[in-house]
Amino acid sequence: MLERIHCENIKEYSRNQLNVLCDELRNVIYSTVMQCGGHLASNLGAVESTLALFYTFDFPKDKIVFDVGHQCYAYKLLSGRYERFGTLRQKDGISGFPKRNESEYDSYDTGHAGTSVSAALGFAKARDLLGEDHAVIAYIGDGSFNNGLIYEALNSLKILGTKILIVLNDNGMSISPTVGGMHDILSNTENAKRVESIRPLEQFGLQYMGVRNGNDLEEMLDSFAEAKEKLKEGSVLLHIATKKGKGYAFSEEHPTNTHGVPPVGTPAQKEYSTVLGETLCRLASKNGKISVVSAAMTEALGLSDFFEKYPERAFDVGICEEHASVLCASMAAGGLKPYYAIYSTFLQRAFDEIIHDVCSMDLPVTFCIDRAGISGADGETHQGVFDLSYLSLSPNLAIFSPKDTEEFQRALLWSETYPHPLAIRYPRAGKVVFGKSEPIELGKWEYLEKAKKTKLTVLATGERSLLIAMKVLQAVQEQGLTFDVVNARFVKPLDEELLGGLKGRIVTIEDNVLQGGFGSAVNTYAIEHGLGVTVKNFAYRDEFIVQGSVAELQKEYGVSCEEIEKYIVAALTVNE
Amino acid sequence: MLERIHCENIKEYSRNQLNVLCDELRNVIYSTVMQCGGHLASNLGAVESTLALFYTFDFPKDKIVFDVGHQCYAYKLLSGRYERFGTLRQKDGISGFPKRNESEYDSYDTGHAGTSVSAALGFAKARDLLGEDHAVIAYIGDGSFNNGLIYEALNSLKILGTKILIVLNDNGMSISPTVGGMHDILSNTENAKRVESIRPLEQFGLQYMGVRNGNDLEEMLDSFAEAKEKLKEGSVLLHIATKKGKGYAFSEEHPTNTHGVPPVGTPAQKEYSTVLGETLCRLASKNGKISVVSAAMTEALGLSDFFEKYPERAFDVGICEEHASVLCASMAAGGLKPYYAIYSTFLQRAFDEIIHDVCSMDLPVTFCIDRAGISGADGETHQGVFDLSYLSLSPNLAIFSPKDTEEFQRALLWSETYPHPLAIRYPRAGKVVFGKSEPIELGKWEYLEKAKKTKLTVLATGERSLLIAMKVLQAVQEQGLTFDVVNARFVKPLDEELLGGLKGRIVTIEDNVLQGGFGSAVNTYAIEHGLGVTVKNFAYRDEFIVQGSVAELQKEYGVSCEEIEKYIVAALTVNE
Repeated sequence: MLERIHCENIKEYSRNQLNVLCDELRNVIYSTVMQCGGHLASNLGAVESTLALFYTFDFPKDKIVFDVGHQCYAYKLLSGRYERFGTLRQKDGISGFPKRNESEYDSYDTGHAGTSVSAALGFAKARDLLGEDHAVIAYIGDGSFNNGLIYEALNSLKILGTKILIVLNDNGMSISPTVGGMHDILSNTENAKRVESIRPLEQFGLQYMGVRNGNDLEEMLDSFAEAKEKLKEGSVLLHIATKKGKGYAFSEEHPTNTHGVPPVGTPAQKEYSTVLGETLCRLASKNGKISVVSAAMTEALGLSDFFEKYPERAFDVGICEEHASVLCASMAAGGLKPYYAIYSTFLQRAFDEIIHDVCSMDLPVTFCIDRAGISGADGETHQGVFDLSYLSLSPNLAIFSPKDTEEFQRALLWSETYPHPLAIRYPRAGKVVFGKSEPIELGKWEYLEKAKKTKLTVLATGERSLLIAMKVLQAVQEQGLTFDVVNARFVKPLDEELLGGLKGRIVTIEDNVLQGGFGSAVNTYAIEHGLGVTVKNFAYRDEFIVQGSVAELQKEYGVSCEEIEKYIVAALTVNE
Repeated sequence: MLERIHCENIKEYSRNQLNVLCDELRNVIYSTVMQCGGHLASNLGAVESTLALFYTFDFPKDKIVFDVGHQCYAYKLLSGRYERFGTLRQKDGISGFPKRNESEYDSYDTGHAGTSVSAALGFAKARDLLGEDHAVIAYIGDGSFNNGLIYEALNSLKILGTKILIVLNDNGMSISPTVGGMHDILSNTENAKRVESIRPLEQFGLQYMGVRNGNDLEEMLDSFAEAKEKLKEGSVLLHIATKKGKGYAFSEEHPTNTHGVPPVGTPAQKEYSTVLGETLCRLASKNGKISVVSAAMTEALGLSDFFEKYPERAFDVGICEEHASVLCASMAAGGLKPYYAIYSTFLQRAFDEIIHDVCSMDLPVTFCIDRAGISGADGETHQGVFDLSYLSLSPNLAIFSPKDTEEFQRALLWSETYPHPLAIRYPRAGKVVFGKSEPIELGKWEYLEKAKKTKLTVLATGERSLLIAMKVLQAVQEQGLTFDVVNARFVKPLDEELLGGLKGRIVTIEDNVLQGGFGSAVNTYAIEHGLGVTVKNFAYRDEFIVQGSVAELQKEYGVSCEEIEKYIVAALTVNE
């Protein structure tokens, strides 16, 4: 039935036909995610409510903002993207998140948590001021509802004096189980009993409706019809309870494992997260001051064991990246040694707290930054390609980028006694181990390849960049040429001694944008100290990087093995 | 009495003596602020509660975190800083905010809003884990209580399972009047009636006490004694109502005017904020799509008139910088033309939303960034010296730094039809008008001085930097030498045509840190394009910049007229 669906004719379907459509949606989502990877459980849980939204509202005239956006697959399938859905998360394919440039049905791009209510309010004010007439809906999960942005938006409801519908899809889970006070306020959902009102929400200016069964299509159709009526009077919060992963037994029972699913057949590699968890456990076993903070992620960061072994020192504060950062700062001020593990892209949320709290007081917080560099299939909103830049500008912060998982472990051991702010950034997968390693010392790099006589030195930071450097070295050596390769593991401070002694040509490689990152710092050093060298930077160019595989995107956005080899061969032969 | 006070002996004072002490504190605060500038109203309002805190708790063993920190004067006076208090906000003097490096009584540095509850929780967990025994207190105003960080921290109370005391000092005002839903929940304060409980706060895990009269010393002493008892059971929120500016008639009646007070005798100059307000009013009178958003500031940003004339298009959302940013993004997506006015240092809070919401969707939001560069007497937490760096790294964002208030006006007029994200950054005071001005065109700079033959070009961005360039030019010309001066008004994109044509030496000057800022971008351009020029950067070095006057700090941190002149004279004469 799905292939014939256009959202306009959903309104003509019988309830029986709609139920069949739910099953089809679920089948397509399941089989596509098994093929392409993606968010399974959250999308399976959102099927009935999404179908009811189409039945009740008129998209794209009406606007919907999906919070985080990881639950929009049914919405995409019902808005003309069924045929292309098999390209989900592939290069040039359908995005796993809402994208304005993909369809007029996607009103607002999301990827990070907590933006939906603010965004809905902005659309609603624009509508009011421009004299338009349509509904605006924020669709948000209970995990996102913990984020500070939601509170700021709720605080604004009365100030802005407009009308929006908030659909709170409560499955009691964010990526890890949802935690915290607001969840308790809302947590009558297990029995799915209807609640007359929730006072705090009403004091913010919301008409409360709940708790409705979000996996019961009949109930959803009735509830949205009711919500649409209430919306005439003012803003509405419709609280629905769903089962994350609804419809697939494995997914229902293991929602954490199926939040993000890799495609079938992905080879198992040693991941940096595994090393993080093991090493922090090792440190904690001897040092009672070690504590660990995460923001709604434990398993993906490799911290499940730590949370199990040291529950009194392990804190998952929900999707609250800013709070987690301040918490670490004050734990350090109070005498602990906190480690804050987080994805690169999400740490952007704590930018001010990194500067204002951790670094300005020079506190010994260690940021363990996973998924740094290109993260791949999740696209623009999830690439970790800005961290070297936004971290480098802060005084007092050292930045380390390990060459492999072994060096990552040694950096973590080294960090235990490092008394200042420290950021360690790394990609997901550890693909190689380079072997040779000099002891870690602040601001000291190491040579991975050093010829007796050389005219060109590659400074590469992080495993991916070094891997490219070594591949190019092999290819170049096969042509009878060679160059030096340096593991520029400290992005800040730079190894001024090594750098100051270089002659000839320098090539920098990094898994980050050029502006303000590693290459940029090398350039400024070279200019400031009149090094008299020629520098060439390989880094991502100044664009948002779309979805695709790491290799595809490296090549397309400016860090291409081929181009680097070409440049180096030309440089070495011209000089010869 | 105050000169003899050490906080240990406060506990021995009679209540009568304590009342006298309150008057003395108020006198010293008032006369010092008249002399040195600073926050008057908030500090006058906090006198009785601060004294009661000292009477009840044992600082520095007990820890207190002042949210924002602008209400800590009485605390400083009572903790051994009376004698040095006359140096308030001066270079090398007493800071207007808590500073760990100033006194062991200051547990945690603050300056931005909303960090106190998170910070108190971190201290409390450190205490618990280290087996210590002391109280931890967060002292917070109602304006800060709107910030998303507070919600994230409240959400954590049960997760962390520790005990803190939150003192909510409610004067119904942040910098502008406090607005929003949470304020309504708490707003029984006008009658200062006692409330049995506030359910939402209790569901977060807080014992609620309130509303107590925060300007009645007797009531404060009793309330803190009671709070200390209750703290044995679990976390407490003590809600106190105070009058901002208590004790000085003018301040009580005009709290907005006296939030931050300049020292007596500061000359009135034309400020950029005045131009912002006038120009946005002018634009709005003809264009119904113009909207304005601010985060708890209107007057200081020059927007009072706009809010009065166009209330339906002017939004003050409270101290919610992130929400304001998303609101602007979606207003733009919905067809409006939003302007978001904010101080440079506070915009750091919206860093992720600038990238994730505004820039990744390439939406036409204009950021009007006031107090950019060194802001002066407020010190480390208020310097606006990172914005060029953290903005430059985002794709799709243009950055403009006007040379004077006239050019600022023209940039705002130009922005009306600019269809992409734009940041305009400027200092507080407009000191000069340079006169000559070429039409604004994306990525185009202009010469302010062009000799027929020259070996050196100064690229300066923003009024302060150009003022230095022109001063140096005058001094150098008196020595029979000269150089070119370029108004590098677009920091991004750079004027590649002009830059690519330069020969000899380039000097860059900016009111920002070096790393990732304007000079850094020029360096990378020069290296990428093999310009064959010698570049010298003048920018702030990689340190947190303390309080002082703009001139003092420019000189001390790396942007000194003298050094620039010396460098240029040497460069010009060596080459001669």
